[in-house]
This record gives sequence, structure tokens and C-alpha cells, in this order.
Amino acid sequence: MTLEFEGLKPVYGGVCAADGFTAGSAHAGIKSGSAKDDLAMIYCVKPCTAAAIYTQNIVQGAPLTVTGKHLEDGTAQAVIVNSGNANTCNSNGIEIAELMCSLTADALGIKPQDVIVASTGVIGQKLAPEPFGKTIPVLAGNLSENGSTDACRAIMTTDTRIKEFAFEFVLPSGNRTCKIGGISKGSGMIHPDMATLLAFITTDAAISPGMLKLALAGANELSYNRMSVDGDTSTNDMACIMASGLAGNAVITEENEDFEAFFDALCAVMLNLARETARDGEGATKLIECAVLNAPTEEAAVMISKAVVSSNLVKAAVFAADANWGRIMCAAGYSGAVFNPEQVSVKIISEYGGVLVCENGTGTGFSEDEAHEVLSADEITIIIDMNRPDSELNQAIAWGCDLTYDYVKINAEYRT
Amino acid sequence: MTLEFEGLKPVYGGVCAADGFTAGSAHAGIKSGSAKDDLAMIYCVKPCTAAAIYTQNIVQGAPLTVTGKHLEDGTAQAVIVNSGNANTCNSNGIEIAELMCSLTADALGIKPQDVIVASTGVIGQKLAPEPFGKTIPVLAGNLSENGSTDACRAIMTTDTRIKEFAFEFVLPSGNRTCKIGGISKGSGMIHPDMATLLAFITTDAAISPGMLKLALAGANELSYNRMSVDGDTSTNDMACIMASGLAGNAVITEENEDFEAFFDALCAVMLNLARETARDGEGATKLIECAVLNAPTEEAAVMISKAVVSSNLVKAAVFAADANWGRIMCAAGYSGAVFNPEQVSVKIISEYGGVLVCENGTGTGFSEDEAHEVLSADEITIIIDMNRPDSELNQAIAWGCDLTYDYVKINAEYRT
Repeated sequence: MTLEFEGLKPVYGGVCAADGFTAGSAHAGIKSGSAKDDLAMIYCVKPCTAAAIYTQNIVQGAPLTVTGKHLEDGTAQAVIVNSGNANTCNSNGIEIAELMCSLTADALGIKPQDVIVASTGVIGQKLAPEPFGKTIPVLAGNLSENGSTDACRAIMTTDTRIKEFAFEFVLPSGNRTCKIGGISKGSGMIHPDMATLLAFITTDAAISPGMLKLALAGANELSYNRMSVDGDTSTNDMACIMASGLAGNAVITEENEDFEAFFDALCAVMLNLARETARDGEGATKLIECAVLNAPTEEAAVMISKAVVSSNLVKAAVFAADANWGRIMCAAGYSGAVFNPEQVSVKIISEYGGVLVCENGTGTGFSEDEAHEVLSADEITIIIDMNRPDSELNQAIAWGCDLTYDYVKINAEYRT
Repeated sequence: MTLEFEGLKPVYGGVCAADGFTAGSAHAGIKSGSAKDDLAMIYCVKPCTAAAIYTQNIVQGAPLTVTGKHLEDGTAQAVIVNSGNANTCNSNGIEIAELMCSLTADALGIKPQDVIVASTGVIGQKLAPEPFGKTIPVLAGNLSENGSTDACRAIMTTDTRIKEFAFEFVLPSGNRTCKIGGISKGSGMIHPDMATLLAFITTDAAISPGMLKLALAGANELSYNRMSVDGDTSTNDMACIMASGLAGNAVITEENEDFEAFFDALCAVMLNLARETARDGEGATKLIECAVLNAPTEEAAVMISKAVVSSNLVKAAVFAADANWGRIMCAAGYSGAVFNPEQVSVKIISEYGGVLVCENGTGTGFSEDEAHEVLSADEITIIIDMNRPDSELNQAIAWGCDLTYDYVKINAEYRT
């Protein structure tokens, strides 16, 4: 499943792959009737350089406010996250988020200001303090270098797959080997808009807070911001990264070759997480990848690829393995990008083959049976070639998933 | 079903209510396997002042190009529309659209340049000329003053309801009685973006082309542009209006009291058509109306109301009669409007009662059973009060529908 990249070696361990990190999970009983673990903790043996990006939604969860304050100094040493309740639009949100941090800090012997806090689940429900008081101290005593998968499972809501990746890479200046890894959750209420889910990333590279933030924002643009499940941007989304520096490299403080190597590794983690999140969209049976090539501008390529993977009608057609390419053209047309439809060709590709369905803006008279076969795979790539000979590098990829009966079922029954 | 307005009397006849207009339908066999009428014609005994607005999609159907050319002089005398094929992204679109106009003109003894042409159905399929050549002459001989409903039915695709309204109104300056009426189609690929469907409106008021266009654009802002079914903006949407002048009023040439009366009547027709279109959204079981009151700006009210009715998650919750108001707050939050969530209250109302679910941005501890009962009706109103005491007039209403299994079913099987 892991998308591999040159110079990056996939490694085991997820969010604990990098030196210094442990993680774990516990069952706090936050959502009544659920027996799954609903609390996750990540810890580093030393304070880390840290950065985060947050949802652009005006209605923001209390944990984001508290985390924002704690990260003002660019330092963090632990993460505490619960699922089952978003701790948002309730009357005691800040109080609970601060309590989660202080309980975590006390249990780990660190400062509350060095704790990152996040929540995911139903919006608008009060949270009781007791489950945290009872569970966090126990959880803090059970962290392990093998705890990444447990932590990932504990933050899942309607997710059905573990999203966990790690890579080893080398910083060229000192030939120093580093690791970077992450976990994330997210299945519904997901649409490209800066940090559209929860993602926790750790690395042992040494990097300044400013460069870490720059790298995170840049990698986010190419990964989570190019993905949609349902067009709804959540109130609680956040992606954060902690860098322990234990790899012992010279601290990265500018955009040099070390920064580039680090950035590529971060992109590899986030691209994989984003892609798996799209594949695991609520009710989804298929991953849809839309690549736009030779566009008038890179911005146009981004707009078109996002519009296509976000279109309910394209998504429903892919679910039915129906090569209704007119809906792809239609979505490109309302994306906001300016282009000449008569130059556009559309190809649909999967492990079962490839079919050119549209050329010069017009249907090719392809075989519907063959197209149906291609669309029956569980990973579909739609290639839209805008055929601008002057613009080879204006391209973009976005990820989404099909729209199925189960999406409606999951979201009609989420609270009940 | 008709939303009534002061000073406007609902009348029979739809697009034939106004003096001078007849309409009818026929079966041309455009889509193989369908026995329903698929061709509609509207005709006026004299050339009319005419105006149209078109989809903002970059990929536009050939009929829109041809209609745009024909309306350059602000005059039209007939409309020809087919369902079953969008005549878009195929190789012979312009040719077929021009053929439809010339056949209509020949049969009615008018100029081809005075024919408005529209198509709706699957994108990217070639259209054969023969069905038009055979059917248009017959259809032209069978038009009637009672033909509005037939014409409306003939342009339906996945629609399940006739959308047809007409009103009588008085122009104050000369105390002259006029009529205005219309039909429309639209069920999927519908999202606020200037003329999101096909709508054909006729009136016997006398009005200049410029003022007619101004009125149409203004009424569109308050009606079709405040409605969403699925977030997809079609390639073929168009709303057009023809004014015969047979009411004999002094021609409306400026924004005076007569223009206001005319504008109100046009709004009444278009609001009703838009609202019924939302109710008849693909697979919908419920009409969702979202009213935003006391907003910081009118623009903010429009953005929030549209975001709420467009949210897949709100739509799925309404389908399940689940008062998951956090999704309403979430949609308001990503609408793009700037506001303070802590001032917001949300009330859900239907014929079964009303429940205040959120006050000051926090849940009210309402009865879930009572809210479920309220949400079981087939018309749901969501009232979002932004509680800005300084801004009583900053309000807006938008319309949408619930997201159901049948939406997925219809769109997964549309072509097959």
C-alpha cells in the first residue's frame, strides 16, 4: 500500500519510528456503549521542536485553541487525543482540554504547556472530566515503542483502516540517518482546506521551529489539501509534528539541501496518510486519483483535480463503474479554472487497463464494457490532459473516493 | 404548495398563463428505450422581448451558444427543448442545436434567430438529426393554451414533480393587469451558480430588453442561486424569459413602481420554481429551508444559508431525522462568513413543532425525541440566528434537500 519514493526507505513503527518516541492507547469510556480504546498518547523523552496547522473553519474545537496557545513557544513533549466526542460547541470545552493537558503533564512529569491536545467525534456534546482523571495516569505508564498502531486505532471514529507510515532518510550535509513517521484519522467531514483531519507526525531530525512550520505547511498543500471525502471541512482538524533532534544532525535552520531532504520525507509520510484517508472515506469502496496534466497554470491543475474528486456525481458514477465522463468534464468546467474544453482529453486507468474516453472535448466512442471493467478496480486513476504544449509542469494530483449507499447509511446513523 | 405573496394572485396555465403563449410536447425518441415525451415547444403569437442567463460552467452545452447568439437582439418568439441528451461535448452539438431552431422556425413560420434552444440529459452523446426532423413539424401543429404541463413533463429527466407556477399582478401606473408564469426542470447536477437548471418564463407585460435582463438576473440571485441539490453545477443550465407585451401596459423602461411590481411577480414565480426544484432533488424525501437572521452582513447570511443546505452531512442527518446540529454549526463555520460562534442559536422547525437545539453556540439539552419528531416532517426549516442586534435586515433563505440512498442509486444508475 505504501507509495514509495526515491531515497526513502519505508520502516516499521509509525509515530514511534523516530528516536525518542513512545505511544499507547486506553479505553476511557468517553462514548457510552463503545468498548474500543478512545484515548491515545504520544510522548518523547525530551522536549521537541513542534508545529501545527489547523482547520480554517470559523467554528473551532476547544482543543485547537488550547494547542495553539501551548505551541506559541514552538515546543511540545507529548500529545493526548480522545475520540468519541469532538469537545466542540459545548459549555466546558476549554476546561476539559486544559484538564487533559494537565493530567498528561502530571502523569509524565512534564509541563502542561508542552502538551498538544486533540479531540474527534460528535460536535456539541458535553464531556465529563472523570474518564480522563481515571485513565490518563494509567495510560502514561503503559507507553511503548510498539504503541503506534494502538494509538492510531484509538483515534479512529468511522475509519476502517489504520493509517500509519514511516520512512528512513539521510540528510546529505552530514550523511546523518533520520526517521520520520505518522498516524492519522479521518473518514468523514473531510475536504481540502488546510489540515483536514487529525495527523500526528514525529521525527528525530533536528530542525528549527520556523523551518518545521514551513515544511509542515508546504507538505500539507501537496497532501491533505488535495483530498476530499465529502466536502465538509471539520471543526477539529489539525496536523502536528514534533522533532526530537535525537538523530544528532546539525539543526536545519534554512532552506538548504538538508531541508529539501527533510521536506521530501515529510511529504512522503503525509501523501501516504492523505491517500489512505481518501481510500478510507466513509462508505468508500474505491480510491479515486485525479491527475491533471499540461494545464494552463498549476493553480488550474489543482482546482480541476480537486473539483473532479469532490463531485458527488463523479463519485456516484465511479461507484457504479460507469464511465460517465461528461460528469468529469462538467466538474472541470465549474472548478473555477479557465480552459478550452476542446483541448481536453480524459483517460481512465486502473490495474485492469486504460481507456481514452474523451479526446478534444468529445467522446471517443470507446467500449462501455471495457471501461466498466477498468472502473471495477478498487483504485481508479482519472487522467485529464489539458494538452497545453507550453505547460508541461503545470500538473496536480488529488485524491477522493466513491459515493456509496454506505456513506448515506453511516451519516444518517452516526449519532444513533 | 404555492408560496403566496401579497398582491399576487396564483392563476392556472403555467407558461401559457400570459396572453399570447401556447405550448406542447411530443415523443421524438431521443433516448432509446424511453416512451415519455422528450420534446417541448413554447410559442408566442408575436415576437417577444427576451432575455436569458446561463450556467457559469466553462464547459457549456451547444444549445447555450446558439441561444446566446439568437438573443443578442433581445428578441425571441419560440422555445424548443429536448430531454434525454444534453447535446454537449459531442462532435455535432452546434449543428443539431441550429437544426432544432431552423426546423422550429420553418414549422411556425418565424425566423430561426427568434428561437431559443435548450437540451438536458446525458453529456457527451451524439444526437441524431432524424427524430427532430420527424417530430418538430407535428409538434408545432399541436400547441395549445393548455399545453404548459405537457411541456413541463417533456423536459423532465430524473425529476418526479411538475414545476409550474403562474401569477396575476397589477402594474400600478396604469392599473393594468398582467400575467407571468413559468415551468422548469432540474433534479440533479444542481448547485447555486446562476441559473442552475432549465427554466422558461413568459409574461404579457411590456418591458424593454435591458430591464427584462436586469429583472431576470436580480430574481435569479434570490431564487435559483440560493438552492442546491448536490453541489454540481451543470453544463446546460439556462433560465429565459419572453415578454409579449400583450397586456398593453406602457413599456417598462426604468426602475419605477411598475418595474418593482413586475420584479416582485417574477420573483414569486422563480422562488416557487426554485423551492420545488430543491424539494424534488434526486432521491430527496424532504425540503430543507435554511433561514439565517441577524447576520453581520447580508453576504454572510447568504454564504451560511447556502453552506448549510449544501452540506452532505447536514443532508444525511435530516434524512435520518437526527438533530445533529453540530454539523449545522460546522457548515456555517466553513461557509467563508466571519462570525462569532458564541452568539449563534439554531432552531429547527416543521409542521410538527419547533426545537431550539443550540444557544450561544452550545447545545441546549433539548429532547432528542422531540427533535426527531420535528425532523420527521417533509418540510424542515433551520433557523440560524446570528444575534447581531445591529443587523436586523441581514438575512437570507436558501433551499436544499436531504441526501438519501436513492440519490446514490439514481446517480450510480443514470446512464445504464
